[in-house]
Amino acid sequence: MRRTIARKRDGAALDDAEWQAVVAGYMSDAIEEAQLAALFMACYFKGIDEPEAAALTRAMVESGETLAPPVANCVDKHSSGGVADTASLIVVPIAAACGIPVAKLSGRALGHTGGTLDKLEAIPGVRTDLSPEAFAEQVRTVGCAVAAQSARLVPADKRMYALRDRTSTVQSLGLVAASIVSKKIAAGAPSIVFDVKVGRGAFFKDLSEVEALSRTMVHIAESFGRRCAAVVTDMNEPLGPAIGTGLEAIEARDFLRNGRRDPRLLALCAILATKMLETAGFAGDAAGAIRHALDSGAAYEMLERMLAAQGAAPGALDALRPHARMLEVRANRSGFVATIDAPKLGLFARALTERFGGTAGVFVHKRIGDAVTAGDVLATVFGGESGEDVLAAYGLADSAPPPRPLVYFEIASEAGGGPEAAAGEPRSRLATR
Amino acid sequence: MRRTIARKRDGAALDDAEWQAVVAGYMSDAIEEAQLAALFMACYFKGIDEPEAAALTRAMVESGETLAPPVANCVDKHSSGGVADTASLIVVPIAAACGIPVAKLSGRALGHTGGTLDKLEAIPGVRTDLSPEAFAEQVRTVGCAVAAQSARLVPADKRMYALRDRTSTVQSLGLVAASIVSKKIAAGAPSIVFDVKVGRGAFFKDLSEVEALSRTMVHIAESFGRRCAAVVTDMNEPLGPAIGTGLEAIEARDFLRNGRRDPRLLALCAILATKMLETAGFAGDAAGAIRHALDSGAAYEMLERMLAAQGAAPGALDALRPHARMLEVRANRSGFVATIDAPKLGLFARALTERFGGTAGVFVHKRIGDAVTAGDVLATVFGGESGEDVLAAYGLADSAPPPRPLVYFEIASEAGGGPEAAAGEPRSRLATR
Repeated sequence: MRRTIARKRDGAALDDAEWQAVVAGYMSDAIEEAQLAALFMACYFKGIDEPEAAALTRAMVESGETLAPPVANCVDKHSSGGVADTASLIVVPIAAACGIPVAKLSGRALGHTGGTLDKLEAIPGVRTDLSPEAFAEQVRTVGCAVAAQSARLVPADKRMYALRDRTSTVQSLGLVAASIVSKKIAAGAPSIVFDVKVGRGAFFKDLSEVEALSRTMVHIAESFGRRCAAVVTDMNEPLGPAIGTGLEAIEARDFLRNGRRDPRLLALCAILATKMLETAGFAGDAAGAIRHALDSGAAYEMLERMLAAQGAAPGALDALRPHARMLEVRANRSGFVATIDAPKLGLFARALTERFGGTAGVFVHKRIGDAVTAGDVLATVFGGESGEDVLAAYGLADSAPPPRPLVYFEIASEAGGGPEAAAGEPRSRLATR
Repeated sequence: MRRTIARKRDGAALDDAEWQAVVAGYMSDAIEEAQLAALFMACYFKGIDEPEAAALTRAMVESGETLAPPVANCVDKHSSGGVADTASLIVVPIAAACGIPVAKLSGRALGHTGGTLDKLEAIPGVRTDLSPEAFAEQVRTVGCAVAAQSARLVPADKRMYALRDRTSTVQSLGLVAASIVSKKIAAGAPSIVFDVKVGRGAFFKDLSEVEALSRTMVHIAESFGRRCAAVVTDMNEPLGPAIGTGLEAIEARDFLRNGRRDPRLLALCAILATKMLETAGFAGDAAGAIRHALDSGAAYEMLERMLAAQGAAPGALDALRPHARMLEVRANRSGFVATIDAPKLGLFARALTERFGGTAGVFVHKRIGDAVTAGDVLATVFGGESGEDVLAAYGLADSAPPPRPLVYFEIASEAGGGPEAAAGEPRSRLATR
């Protein structure tokens, strides 16, 4: 292992056998944590190239079980984490309503970012701890399922992530890519759509880093024969208006049912749902099918069926209401919204739900670029007793900021319809930091 | 600790309190080895500046006992490790014979480099495991002592070095400097001379790295109020002719007694002994005193007295003879000695002494730059059955290589007589690698 560490430290690419030995040795306690920590830090500085990331991913996948695809044409969807990112709760039932089964394993809230499992569990009765067998059966019979990662899949990831967390080596692109993709590979879906967030509310702030991360993720997934697409999207402000587990469940419900659709959230969901259909081989007019699933109420019904299958009490979704204590946060000057500190809002909403229950949180009315007059309501706090943190998260300026794209670029695997990258050639090596 | 790791990872200089917390936390098991390993790897890439190295050294020294100086004007001498480096066995008695007491704690062989303790123990009866009290008493009564580091001094160094060794983070300049100097500080001598080796037979190959290492070591020692000097010397070939624990003891004996003095070894010993006298405040003509100590036999007598005090059997040094099996290694072509692979010879000699006893080893007759005719004896192998490895260590060429200096430059602390650096301004920050 010393030699492996020294090779990475000196900038070499480790071969498949070395990555296998690292992961297998760590899981069998033949390699000590200190050695893996030193290797991770060397990876932080020297990077991991795409073949290395694929080899590491394979070694991680082989540390546990791998699920067979519940249905041949099913799709999985992943978000790298953001604030007010309600997209999964919306696009999963949309795709399923369009006839593309969705088999999605999700995570918990991490830091300031929300977790889809927590949002589902804000709905009374809903369980996410499905066994792999129950999960697959639900995908087959209902059309979609969103469940927690089983401990039987990629056990190496849990241990390695905890070690990276304790040793400040989380932010290493190749390690992040392997961690994300290994879980998707083990979960079995033959098609995968990655929503990779970039910006102050995401884990990565730098577009070129995220580009490299996305390309590596696509490369790894392809090396396992999966079809996939990655969409790099903006996370410099909350994606949707609702921040908080239960508030986001309400947002998804109303989005699918009532047609009250936040334009930014709608724009991203349309893109992601389209990618999911395309990647899974949907034949026909994807955009038309998605519109129909929304307008006909089929997507909403699919959400209800999925929740019911996962234990939701009858009428529970319908009955979900924001926390009764409401507090309006008003602009203390006129101007334009120049910035919104999404991590601050994410942490604030998380603290509120922990103190006041699942439907506490923040609802954001004014978004970046909006004109405001002093006294206008910027946001509503549900459950909390003070809006100071929310006001502090708003940066108001005299002029409107330059518009920022919602989607920076897309990458698709060859098998998924040819490369659609809008930002130059793929880079074979991750940027070193 | 995560924050400390992240700060170093991002290039910050850690403050005194952070280094204190790192070492104290590690020694109390409050900080896990994996975290320290990650920090060490970050140090490898980002470097440690001189104040940081001093703070780390202080924290390491405080992990154990610190000895009072046995005598007010005593001196210590350190070599960063090389092949055929018999200098300590020669300069310690010289300085003591000149009236400057020497209190030297030494180490074991490491990799291809020799260790003074091993060379002393090749003399029948000699013990190096003196208690701190016996060590100090011998310095006072005999004038010099060379003993093993007590486990009571700098216990943090032993643990930290072992961790660095397992995690391929040994070669980090600031960590090396702190490791070396912490032991010298704890050993108590108010004056210290560092012989810092550079070249293919040393641990560092790059002159600018060694310059930075030397300046940092001097800076650290100064921060503890010690007077010191560093001499950066060539280790691209064996320093003296003898390689092997017992052979080097014989070399030192004959050097001091018989006047058969290898010119290269003599040149370095004269410089080191002069530095030891000057740094310790010797008043008068140091060069003349050293010459007299050699020519009068006073230095040899001092060596005998020191060995006797450390348990040498009467006549043991005198009776020491090279291993009886002798094998001559002859040049297979004519030309000039262009290179000598010192690590190869060091490892070969070490293996011979392990198999065939303490006075096995290699005696090198031809040195870099020497002209040879095919059939000339290049070296003699004592104890071994084959000279192939030795022949392979010689690089013969058609022309003589350009001459290389024995001493690259010297650095002295202010208190030790003013800066004598011959290679530009001190650099305040270690080169990052």
